[in-house]
Amino acid sequence: MLLLIPGPVTTRPETRAALAHDFAPWDNDFRPLLAGLCQRLLRIAGGTPDTHTVLPLQGCGHFITEAAVRTFIPAGGKLLIPDTGSYSDRMVRLAREAGRIPVSLPISPGAPTPPEAVAAALKADPDISHVGVVYSETGSGVVHDPAAIGAVARAAERRLIVDAVSAFGALPLDVSTQPEIDAAVFTSNKCLEGVPGMAFAVARVDRLEACVGNAGSWSFDLASIHAYTLRAGPGSSRFTPPAQVINALNRALDFHEAEGQPARLARYTENMRVLYDGVQAFGLTPCLAREHQGPIIVNVHAPDDPAWDLQRFVDALKRRGVLISNFYNTPAPSFRVGCIGAIMPDDMRRAVGAMAEALNELGINRRRAA
Amino acid sequence: MLLLIPGPVTTRPETRAALAHDFAPWDNDFRPLLAGLCQRLLRIAGGTPDTHTVLPLQGCGHFITEAAVRTFIPAGGKLLIPDTGSYSDRMVRLAREAGRIPVSLPISPGAPTPPEAVAAALKADPDISHVGVVYSETGSGVVHDPAAIGAVARAAERRLIVDAVSAFGALPLDVSTQPEIDAAVFTSNKCLEGVPGMAFAVARVDRLEACVGNAGSWSFDLASIHAYTLRAGPGSSRFTPPAQVINALNRALDFHEAEGQPARLARYTENMRVLYDGVQAFGLTPCLAREHQGPIIVNVHAPDDPAWDLQRFVDALKRRGVLISNFYNTPAPSFRVGCIGAIMPDDMRRAVGAMAEALNELGINRRRAA
Repeated sequence: MLLLIPGPVTTRPETRAALAHDFAPWDNDFRPLLAGLCQRLLRIAGGTPDTHTVLPLQGCGHFITEAAVRTFIPAGGKLLIPDTGSYSDRMVRLAREAGRIPVSLPISPGAPTPPEAVAAALKADPDISHVGVVYSETGSGVVHDPAAIGAVARAAERRLIVDAVSAFGALPLDVSTQPEIDAAVFTSNKCLEGVPGMAFAVARVDRLEACVGNAGSWSFDLASIHAYTLRAGPGSSRFTPPAQVINALNRALDFHEAEGQPARLARYTENMRVLYDGVQAFGLTPCLAREHQGPIIVNVHAPDDPAWDLQRFVDALKRRGVLISNFYNTPAPSFRVGCIGAIMPDDMRRAVGAMAEALNELGINRRRAA
Repeated sequence: MLLLIPGPVTTRPETRAALAHDFAPWDNDFRPLLAGLCQRLLRIAGGTPDTHTVLPLQGCGHFITEAAVRTFIPAGGKLLIPDTGSYSDRMVRLAREAGRIPVSLPISPGAPTPPEAVAAALKADPDISHVGVVYSETGSGVVHDPAAIGAVARAAERRLIVDAVSAFGALPLDVSTQPEIDAAVFTSNKCLEGVPGMAFAVARVDRLEACVGNAGSWSFDLASIHAYTLRAGPGSSRFTPPAQVINALNRALDFHEAEGQPARLARYTENMRVLYDGVQAFGLTPCLAREHQGPIIVNVHAPDDPAWDLQRFVDALKRRGVLISNFYNTPAPSFRVGCIGAIMPDDMRRAVGAMAEALNELGINRRRAA
């Protein structure tokens, strides 16, 4: 079964095989594994141990996003969140329920956040300390530009939290060139091609030390994770981590390092292109203009046909070995297909073929584009 | 390698094999799996769907404990926490950092919490709404009695949160007989013999509905998890769950159901007895009197010998295929051995033999007891 969802992704057999061991997380054989994994992730993020650290947190992307917001923004603090879609909505809710004040910045749907709009909003409200940016918006498929947004935040002496959950490992990130980034957060199960269960933040050491006491949650306090690691040693965990998930991610990183981030991005981009062109070839329309279509997920407008039924389409694809999401996040009905994971352009060609067959099965016969 | 730590535990090969699949957590084939798992856990807890529900939360025992405290006790609320040891200390810290007011109740170390002490503390402070009880205190090895403590809480019209993390599945729990329990929390990787990565709360539906808005954290709001499940359907997840860990736990429950909770408790108790008697036979002294020694973990006083070195002992055991903790939580130096997981009394006999050899290797020749 080919998982074509924007995470959890299709993993390699070697990655799944690395799940099949029992570990004692405090053992001297396990701690170097976790410490080494964090070092590998730090390299992918462009950080050096002098200035940055990678903090592991068990759980999902929402957890690490809440942890970053809690740690770097004190209760009552204000953060500006460009309204990129589903995941900016979620950051707004996470921040509000944690007692921070999110300020949503309306932007045009279907296009990257204009940095000048961020600059204007920061200028208008000096109480805003942070900008919270979704790098790859899974809701829309648009990739936003944390470097460009970071530049205006830096110029305005504000700070950045980057939700890089569906971006990290494929889209470029270099925290060494963006001192305004307090944290960029990501998980094991997206472009790193591990299984779900672990999240991480790459964060500045000086800021972690300055932000002790902000979090209002021991579990979600990144400053506490940092302090504990300093005291108990690299790879030490405050609480029981999902050791099998960590071992699998470490195995998955072997393949990430062999491929390299640019080649992984190129592979995903080619997956996206095969899909984008493929659905157009049988008369369907992707939701985004090509120039704004990111490489992580493609939303495709549902066929304007009374025979269309998303769940039936999903089921028909599943019988052909292809699994896509059975829901959509766009304003108009659509189906969504992930382009990430251990899949190749040939897999996507097979999936596009399955989509054509599934549409036929539903009785939707689209004219092929000329 | 035999893991003899109080979780993560040694798992069965069948359980680990269930990790080796990719899942789409929102897929119609996965949601019944998670829904069914929660139903199975509800049965183990003695709950019925009319009154109780099982809420899944990705992560560790600390996370689900913090979630229960946040959900059922509003900010500024007071909870009484009998001072059972390391894990009551942790509940105190979790509650305090979440803005609740923990009141620690001193008790004698090495013995169960006297219910009358709880009753007196509740009588003395009418502002205390809840008692937070650690069922099996992993720090000491003592099993406390949530039924007896619950009875005095009920009589005083207060409510209970039970940290059943290292108890659930082996020690008895029947929420149907304890209406004062708001939540009992547990994880996948202790007496249920799954791998780490998932936590759960069994909770009262009426209380979840009454406690909307308390949590101050979207991630840790059990009332939100409950409302989402009602809206999106059984087995639906708000955020990406660790699907492989869930599938493995579901497989592990096959073995739990085949064995039954009483037999599992009997097996662990026999593991404990083999260990307790075994170390005594070569002249070592368990930290607890036999009548207070629980079946989950045994702490053993470190030999009073200058050649004792915990890490060397752990390493010598590891070379013999037995892994124990390389730290201790008792006031005086000790070593700790878990009795839980997919291990049999014969495994524990082998481990005791390895301990005797490891002591010899360290040059610690204990006289055998007469």
